[in-house]
Amino acid sequence: MVLNSNRVEHFSGGGGGTTTTITISGDALPPLETHEVCLPPHRTTLQKLRQRLSEIFFPDDPLHGFKNQTWFRKLHFGLQYFFPIFQWATNYNIKLLRSDVVSGLTIASLAIPQGISYAKLANLPPIIGLYSSFVPPLIYSVLGSSRHLAVGPVSIASLVMGTMLSETVSSTEEPILYLQLAFTATLFAGLFQASLGFLRLGFVIDFLSKATLLGFMAGAAVIVSLQQLKGLLGIVHFTSKMQLVPVLSSVFHQRNEWSWQTIVMGVCFLLFLLTTRKISMRRPKLFWISAASPLASVILSTILVVLLKSRVHDIKTIGHLPKGLNPPSSNMLYLHGPYLGLAIKTGIVTGILSLTEGIAVGRTFAALKNYQVDGNKEMMAIGLMNMAGSCSSCYVTTGSFSRSAVNYNAGAQTVVSNIILATTVLVTLLFLMPLFYYTPNLILAAIIISAVIGLIDYQAAIRLWKVDKLDFLACISSFLGVLFISVPLGLAIAVGVSVLKVLLHVTRPNTVVLGNIPGTQIYQNLSRYKETVRVPSFFILAIESPMYFANSMYLQERILRWIREEEQWIETNNDSNMKCIILDMTAVTAIDTSGIDTISELRKMLEKRSLKVSHQKTVFPCKF
Amino acid sequence: MVLNSNRVEHFSGGGGGTTTTITISGDALPPLETHEVCLPPHRTTLQKLRQRLSEIFFPDDPLHGFKNQTWFRKLHFGLQYFFPIFQWATNYNIKLLRSDVVSGLTIASLAIPQGISYAKLANLPPIIGLYSSFVPPLIYSVLGSSRHLAVGPVSIASLVMGTMLSETVSSTEEPILYLQLAFTATLFAGLFQASLGFLRLGFVIDFLSKATLLGFMAGAAVIVSLQQLKGLLGIVHFTSKMQLVPVLSSVFHQRNEWSWQTIVMGVCFLLFLLTTRKISMRRPKLFWISAASPLASVILSTILVVLLKSRVHDIKTIGHLPKGLNPPSSNMLYLHGPYLGLAIKTGIVTGILSLTEGIAVGRTFAALKNYQVDGNKEMMAIGLMNMAGSCSSCYVTTGSFSRSAVNYNAGAQTVVSNIILATTVLVTLLFLMPLFYYTPNLILAAIIISAVIGLIDYQAAIRLWKVDKLDFLACISSFLGVLFISVPLGLAIAVGVSVLKVLLHVTRPNTVVLGNIPGTQIYQNLSRYKETVRVPSFFILAIESPMYFANSMYLQERILRWIREEEQWIETNNDSNMKCIILDMTAVTAIDTSGIDTISELRKMLEKRSLKVSHQKTVFPCKF
Repeated sequence: MVLNSNRVEHFSGGGGGTTTTITISGDALPPLETHEVCLPPHRTTLQKLRQRLSEIFFPDDPLHGFKNQTWFRKLHFGLQYFFPIFQWATNYNIKLLRSDVVSGLTIASLAIPQGISYAKLANLPPIIGLYSSFVPPLIYSVLGSSRHLAVGPVSIASLVMGTMLSETVSSTEEPILYLQLAFTATLFAGLFQASLGFLRLGFVIDFLSKATLLGFMAGAAVIVSLQQLKGLLGIVHFTSKMQLVPVLSSVFHQRNEWSWQTIVMGVCFLLFLLTTRKISMRRPKLFWISAASPLASVILSTILVVLLKSRVHDIKTIGHLPKGLNPPSSNMLYLHGPYLGLAIKTGIVTGILSLTEGIAVGRTFAALKNYQVDGNKEMMAIGLMNMAGSCSSCYVTTGSFSRSAVNYNAGAQTVVSNIILATTVLVTLLFLMPLFYYTPNLILAAIIISAVIGLIDYQAAIRLWKVDKLDFLACISSFLGVLFISVPLGLAIAVGVSVLKVLLHVTRPNTVVLGNIPGTQIYQNLSRYKETVRVPSFFILAIESPMYFANSMYLQERILRWIREEEQWIETNNDSNMKCIILDMTAVTAIDTSGIDTISELRKMLEKRSLKVSHQKTVFPCKF
Repeated sequence: MVLNSNRVEHFSGGGGGTTTTITISGDALPPLETHEVCLPPHRTTLQKLRQRLSEIFFPDDPLHGFKNQTWFRKLHFGLQYFFPIFQWATNYNIKLLRSDVVSGLTIASLAIPQGISYAKLANLPPIIGLYSSFVPPLIYSVLGSSRHLAVGPVSIASLVMGTMLSETVSSTEEPILYLQLAFTATLFAGLFQASLGFLRLGFVIDFLSKATLLGFMAGAAVIVSLQQLKGLLGIVHFTSKMQLVPVLSSVFHQRNEWSWQTIVMGVCFLLFLLTTRKISMRRPKLFWISAASPLASVILSTILVVLLKSRVHDIKTIGHLPKGLNPPSSNMLYLHGPYLGLAIKTGIVTGILSLTEGIAVGRTFAALKNYQVDGNKEMMAIGLMNMAGSCSSCYVTTGSFSRSAVNYNAGAQTVVSNIILATTVLVTLLFLMPLFYYTPNLILAAIIISAVIGLIDYQAAIRLWKVDKLDFLACISSFLGVLFISVPLGLAIAVGVSVLKVLLHVTRPNTVVLGNIPGTQIYQNLSRYKETVRVPSFFILAIESPMYFANSMYLQERILRWIREEEQWIETNNDSNMKCIILDMTAVTAIDTSGIDTISELRKMLEKRSLKVSHQKTVFPCKF
């Protein structure tokens, strides 16, 4: 009878050897043969290192298309690789264009009010939001590999940029400096994103787990919604802080500034927007209702304000917006001075957040349509887009979840929908800006609230609680951290909890006692399988983690404790003496030198006590 | 035929269920039964949390002796638990005492010259080294649980303290401040150690892997040996820096200060010490030769200097040492002021290093004699010992490797040998101090060099290179970091490399294609087992790590790449089509919510391509 005979490999300092199998006699089953381990062909250290590095940095084998091709094909592939536009441009046709025009116009109707609102969220002039919906989509359409990603400013990055910059520089008192810092942060966000992609360090964003992001987004959504009460209630003097307490106190201390006309109109439009959202969520076919409602609200509210302007004076409007295309802003980059550190920090935080959203959204829709999005290439595309954006009066942009969902639902086929979006924004910038003069601020607040409220997914949080308490802890700590401390610190706490969880699992791996299911060769967890029975004289222990320096000491202590407890159990139950300890190492997929030392020390200690130790499936300790 | 049927558990959001087994038909083997999973008894979240926390913080179940005992027995156990002296004191007899006296006197003969030398290493007055060999051993003998640990100053902690403090404060220009900072650092080292033990965070020191320490100690030993050239060559003006380059340049720039008498005498004694060391290493029975040689050298060299003092003037001697017991030093603690941060930092670094040595040494000898040392309790004992030491003119002490080895070889039975050591030091302090007046400094340098040279274990480094390249990288980076940058930074780099290694393994787990060994139920790595064959229409992939948020994205991409490559392989080899993908999750011992999402996404994506996905032994995702 062989315990966990699969992948039994001999354990010795250098690697390979013959299989060691433990035969427990006195059983009806025939003993299984010993299987020779076929050593993999010998490779030099350099070859091993190369393979290991390519596993680490090129897990998706991005150049697999280049293998065994002619020189010309390679060039062709190379062009396609760096500019995905060449991949689909040759097959582009009228039918695809028709779909793309429809979806492009649809997202434009969403993108214009969203752009204006999100720019306000970042405490930037509204026009910057429109600029940011023009240049970046054009660049992405050339470099991006996702067909459904709709590019533009997003709520989280806008919010974080607004928070982090406002804590030091006031956007109302020093608007030019603020704008400079925003562009500089955008440049650094782009640099950071592009270099992450270039250095193939994309796995960094994997450390923002879904649970962390869930809590983070909910916290941010609460804060942002409360911040928007400024516009919705018509308050003029409002705190620039972002924590729950000062925002709430600001809302209630300025009650004398509340304007009932603003409140009535704002609440009506908010209800309208939330209702259309609800409808579209219930019936995905009616996606266009919620997609069109922001533009409809903007038009409707503007008309209302124009009609009522002789009667109502309290309602604040956007006012004059400059006509014309993005002005260059490379001369506004703030590259030395006391605030450079702030700009870099803001850039990195917004960069990583927007990257996470962009990559996640891109992957989601790629998975739905069964094509591949290369994470590292996407990072470079998004990074270059932001670097170019920072020189053309744009702030941080990425693939927006809400916009991409609308884009996908509207039937987008290629990134041409981004080009249509940019063209529509272009037309708006050139000719339609005066129309926004009477657009009330309250409608922007309503649009923002209805957008961010969708980010609060309490059902997912409940699911987390049910499935994994530590994930829930990460979620709730990022939520509370954002709500009560600050956005970057909340995020840092959440990442810390997530990493701690990994380290905890690594330093405190499970050890499980196994028993035999009678009449079979199956060995199972004694406490989980009713039918399992102890094998007399044998004590079988499964180690459920690779053995590292970080857990080898713990495992040694824990195994000794198991044996001590087992001996006590045998004493009280008058069972047959323990003679052999079998360590099931099926889950020990890697071992380092500390682990090897622990095993041999353990063996020495137990053999002194006349206990035989066998370990099953001990692995090749050498990883490259 | 069941693939990896052991520990097959049903995978669903909440836990338990029935076993899912995949039966591959068309095979001669009888299909195995399905085994019901016996759900563990229902526990509340609080109970699970409690169990999980006790697994994390009390893996060794320190209170197991207290269970089911009378009140009186519990009190008795409690006393024994906190003061291990009560455990052995009742059984103590003359025979044990005889062994302890012999070993105590042996270590005292080593401890006195070592104490003086190590204090010089820390740039402290030599007398502090003797003080530190008096109070701490007494305290450890009451609190410590190791029977063979001999307590006193150690080279690494002395060296690090000397380096870190000297970088900011000069021990020659501000001796009082330097002494204050040393005591304060000792206090914080003790506080840190005791609180690590009290909070049961002992696993922190596990992050200093053996490989890291190997490189660290070798680097420190090289630096210290070079530093001792000051004493050995008789140089007066020497750099206080600790990097390789300034030390070497200092040695060669002060050639005019070299004193040939000092050099001849120093080299002779160094050769004598190294020879005795070699002899004792070759023949462990002759341990006393190397144990006695430091004291013999001190006596011999002092006599030589006294005899030659009219002829030789160049040889520097220790000079006057104050007689008497440890003066209280609690009034010298530096608890506010600009250097407090430095003292805390030094305390934490020396604390963690001395703790690592103390625990490792304690565990080593406990393992040899087959008794248990409670790591957390040891931490508290060492911490309290240092806290008391800081108030009685002692600097950082811990269980010394060299001293404990001599103690063990000399036949020590209990911690009484520490009491004997303290008594001998007491007698020395009270009556023998004037004898050290003519002891030359060069002999201290020779003792230090011969002690630290033993820390350079190049053979272990070669072994690391052969077995695990990443461990070797951690080792060499800590070696070079200490040599060329600084001691704490070198250590930080090495810990960083070690942690990176863990994270690397977690974020980039192995995935392996399995094949069947014909005629068996065994599925093995296709590339390692010669006999394995592919199962037609099936693609079997083993995931060799728990699935976390940190690797779920990678695993998804990697699995899709495997399938893509497999499809290409099938195409070129005209094999039968792939119909089912089996994920062998035997090594997936834990899964978090991101992992679950990945699995279900993967299933969705592959099912769209009419591929069936089965996963074996998917685990209970909930850990508490």
